[in-house]
Amino acid sequence: MAVYTDVPDEELRAFVADYAIGEVISCKGIAEGVENSNFLLRSEAGTYILTLYEKRVAPTDLPFFIALMEHLAAHGVACPTPVKAKDGRALRLLCGRPAAIVSFLDGMWPRRIHSFHCAGVGGALAQLHLAGTSFAMRRPNNLSVAGWRSLFEACRARAHEVRAGLADELAAELDALERSWPKALPTGIIHADLFPDNVFFRNHEVSGLIDFYFACTDFLAYDIAICLNAWCFESDGSFNVTKARLLLASYRAVRPLSPEEFAALPLLARGSAMRFLLTRLYDWLNHPPGAFVRPKDPLEYLQKLRFHRSVEQSSAYGLDR
Amino acid sequence: MAVYTDVPDEELRAFVADYAIGEVISCKGIAEGVENSNFLLRSEAGTYILTLYEKRVAPTDLPFFIALMEHLAAHGVACPTPVKAKDGRALRLLCGRPAAIVSFLDGMWPRRIHSFHCAGVGGALAQLHLAGTSFAMRRPNNLSVAGWRSLFEACRARAHEVRAGLADELAAELDALERSWPKALPTGIIHADLFPDNVFFRNHEVSGLIDFYFACTDFLAYDIAICLNAWCFESDGSFNVTKARLLLASYRAVRPLSPEEFAALPLLARGSAMRFLLTRLYDWLNHPPGAFVRPKDPLEYLQKLRFHRSVEQSSAYGLDR
Repeated sequence: MAVYTDVPDEELRAFVADYAIGEVISCKGIAEGVENSNFLLRSEAGTYILTLYEKRVAPTDLPFFIALMEHLAAHGVACPTPVKAKDGRALRLLCGRPAAIVSFLDGMWPRRIHSFHCAGVGGALAQLHLAGTSFAMRRPNNLSVAGWRSLFEACRARAHEVRAGLADELAAELDALERSWPKALPTGIIHADLFPDNVFFRNHEVSGLIDFYFACTDFLAYDIAICLNAWCFESDGSFNVTKARLLLASYRAVRPLSPEEFAALPLLARGSAMRFLLTRLYDWLNHPPGAFVRPKDPLEYLQKLRFHRSVEQSSAYGLDR
Repeated sequence: MAVYTDVPDEELRAFVADYAIGEVISCKGIAEGVENSNFLLRSEAGTYILTLYEKRVAPTDLPFFIALMEHLAAHGVACPTPVKAKDGRALRLLCGRPAAIVSFLDGMWPRRIHSFHCAGVGGALAQLHLAGTSFAMRRPNNLSVAGWRSLFEACRARAHEVRAGLADELAAELDALERSWPKALPTGIIHADLFPDNVFFRNHEVSGLIDFYFACTDFLAYDIAICLNAWCFESDGSFNVTKARLLLASYRAVRPLSPEEFAALPLLARGSAMRFLLTRLYDWLNHPPGAFVRPKDPLEYLQKLRFHRSVEQSSAYGLDR
């Protein structure tokens, strides 16, 4: 439920007057996303999303995100396209916050994941990676292996509140990940948060990817590992190898994986599980009582982490090589 | 922030397939309203609001609300029009809740009230009252004078937590209102909750009235009194007589007030202040800690109540008669 800032109608009218999209017809806060305030904006020219960037997004990162969406949209990725104001700028100020208007994408995100969704997301992810190769800006991934230890230390003393022995298990896992994390794999723009609520479908096809506010520069295969975790486990914690095979095969049909990337998948998937486990654990231990947003269960990702640790090689994900 | 029920995409598609509005293009939860779950639904045929009625609306009242909106829309009131499914029914079931699709209304509700808004709402209210005269169904107003004492008794013992002496002041006021409340004034359909967030404007004109879920049968002039309280006080508590005059004059230009109605306005305005004071007081004392919705300040309406008690006659509202 994410509308942190109420935008008065008069401020909105003045803001939109600086764009060539006609007058505002309506504007409704959207109860989706947790980081920013999002509005469904209808003007005489069409339908848009208006985003006010709240404090969880670093203002210095915004030019990267805006430029990335522009680049990807121009290279055929179905993603929100920033709309430039008459002064040529897409990133502006509204109600004291950085704000942008982007194009509206049709489609709905799937609440129940079927195999065809996994095939769709695999292909879309590969297209995103290919389109990103020509993007010149870089942004380090501060939620990859180099960032996990400080997150872990911030949670260590209270991890037992969530599960007995959790701190010890994570400490050992973190040591192992730091020791064996790949040094060199094909690198480029990754989405880094391609969960089901960020992928829209229409008629069984991907119609749009949204929420690029974790996008960064990292191993492309790490993005695949994030998707394996986000899309291929059932709600009872079991791993659906059919979904994984479809996701990987659809990805490889667009962008082939090197043998090194393929071999690294179990390790990358453990790392991805560690990343979401740690951020969820941190949010779980630190969310204010009565907060609007209910924190997500960190233990879901402990189960996923253990699964990938049990995997000997990538063939466990449904493809031989 | 009101989305209490998440509607899975598959259930939604099946639900919409029973209407003649084409396929779903997108559906976003709206962060407005507090009683129900509202979604902005786009289909191949247009834009709609999908409402799931949550527990605060009595299911037995829903046929009244749906029929009322149909009637008013058919009689020229710019209000949501229920869309009938192929089986002819507008009130159906989705995710285990009563649900309806209604037409989408352009416009935005005003955050800062200017005089022209008050003129607009006065005229729109009178048109609503005229259109309601031919509506056959009735619904008693359980939040009018007969309902206040039980609300008061539910709050009495803890009213001092909000303000010292509040219970005594309300007890005396309630006695006075029960003694002198009008017995016979022109009666019909009233909106009963026409606050600024329920009135949309475009280009300085009223473009729509929404949220008919408190509508009922009561004195028409009581609806005017509710609007005087909701629209004509400044945020510092002062009464803006210019706004009141415009609201009343615009109302009377569409539907003349009888001398009895005009004379009763101060009493009706005290009653209206009592009604919102009591429900806010109840919500204030009984809201669960950490609830999504922050309760509104009951004391805002104590100040309004005192103002109207100080008024000798209706000329205080800016018109001589």
